[in-house]
Parts: sequence; C-alpha cells; structure tokens
Amino acid sequence: MAEKNSIKVLIDGKIITLSGYETEDYLQRVAYYLNTKISELSTLPGYRRQSADSKSTLLALNIADDYFKAKARAEAMEADIESKDQDTYDAKHDLVSAQVEIAKLKKEIERLKGGGRK
Amino acid sequence: MAEKNSIKVLIDGKIITLSGYETEDYLQRVAYYLNTKISELSTLPGYRRQSADSKSTLLALNIADDYFKAKARAEAMEADIESKDQDTYDAKHDLVSAQVEIAKLKKEIERLKGGGRK
Repeated sequence: MAEKNSIKVLIDGKIITLSGYETEDYLQRVAYYLNTKISELSTLPGYRRQSADSKSTLLALNIADDYFKAKARAEAMEADIESKDQDTYDAKHDLVSAQVEIAKLKKEIERLKGGGRK
Repeated sequence: MAEKNSIKVLIDGKIITLSGYETEDYLQRVAYYLNTKISELSTLPGYRRQSADSKSTLLALNIADDYFKAKARAEAMEADIESKDQDTYDAKHDLVSAQVEIAKLKKEIERLKGGGRK
C-alpha cells in the first residue's frame, strides 16, 4: 500500500474523510465495526442520557475491550504454536530414528539372506 | 469472575467508575492503554484544534485499528495452527507406519535366524 488514500466513511451518521495508507475496504470495515459498536451501546439503558464525553469514553472502553481480548487470543495461540512446534519436532525426530532403524533392519535381513546363500 | 466489581479508573484526566465482572487489574490496564492512545493522538499536528466529536472519532478509529490488527494476527495464527496440526498428524501417521514396518522386519529377522537354527 504505497499510495496514500483519501476515503470517505460514514461513522455515527457523519461523513468523515480518512487519509492514510490503508485500503478503502479496510477502512470501510473499521467504520462498519464502529457503527455496530455505537448501535450496540445505544440499546443500553441510560446510554442516551449520558453526556457526549461519557458516550465517547464508553465507546473507547468497549473497543479497547475487544482489542484486549483479541490480543489475549493471539498471545494464547502464540504459546499454542510453540507447543505444537515442539510436538511436530518430536514426531519428526522419532520418525527419522524409526527410518534409521528400518534401514538397519533391512541391512540385517539382507545379510541373513545373503549368509544363507553363501 | 462471579462478583460484580465497581472500580474507579482515570481516563483522559477524569475519574470514571466502571462496574462489571472484569478484574480491577484488567480495567486499569485498559484505562492505561486508552490514556496512552490519547497521549499519542495529542502529539499529532492539528489534533488539539479538532472538535471533541472529531477527537472522539479519531480515538475510536485508532483503537479499532489496533483491534483489527490483533484480530488479523489471531486469525493468521489460527490458520498456522491448523497447518501445524496437519504436519504433526502426518508425521505421527508416518511414525506409526514406520513402527509397523519395524515390527514386520524384526519378525522377518526372527524367522530368518530361527530358520538358520532349525
């Protein structure tokens, strides 16, 4: 994304022009997400009576909560990947040992059969 | 977290009381994150001259961007885990086949040796 874009999105009923290196698709998805969050909050009892300031803080807290949860999920998976890498490494290591043993046993069979013919 | 907590946090210089089932530690970390975001935005040229409404939208967009990036990271890792699971499964499957072959070869050796002694 080398070119700087200038994109109009609709957030909370207002047209906002965003400029940056993100794609239009990405920014529209972010705007859609924000509008969904705002709609969700609007259904909470007492939300409409809050000051603009409180509404803004509530929205920010809400999104931050989503962010922290996604971050925790990513971190948990990072740990999971490490343990899976170890599993795969162990299985591949055991496989190589088994293949070495197979080669050894085949040689032994060869020797036994050859010995028989001698 | 069964008990509902009522916790005071400081966001953008204002004391806000949050109630919910999250731990105090979690809410303080979220508040700290928000304050860091607000400080970062405050250093942008022209930010201070924006209306409260625009500032609030900018903050929400900024956090949503962090959320989308963390979510994408988690999703990429989910795909990575699936492919690693497949790798491990394949390696374990090959290991079992190798072990079966080892048992067969050992039996063959037994037979060849026994045959020799007969």
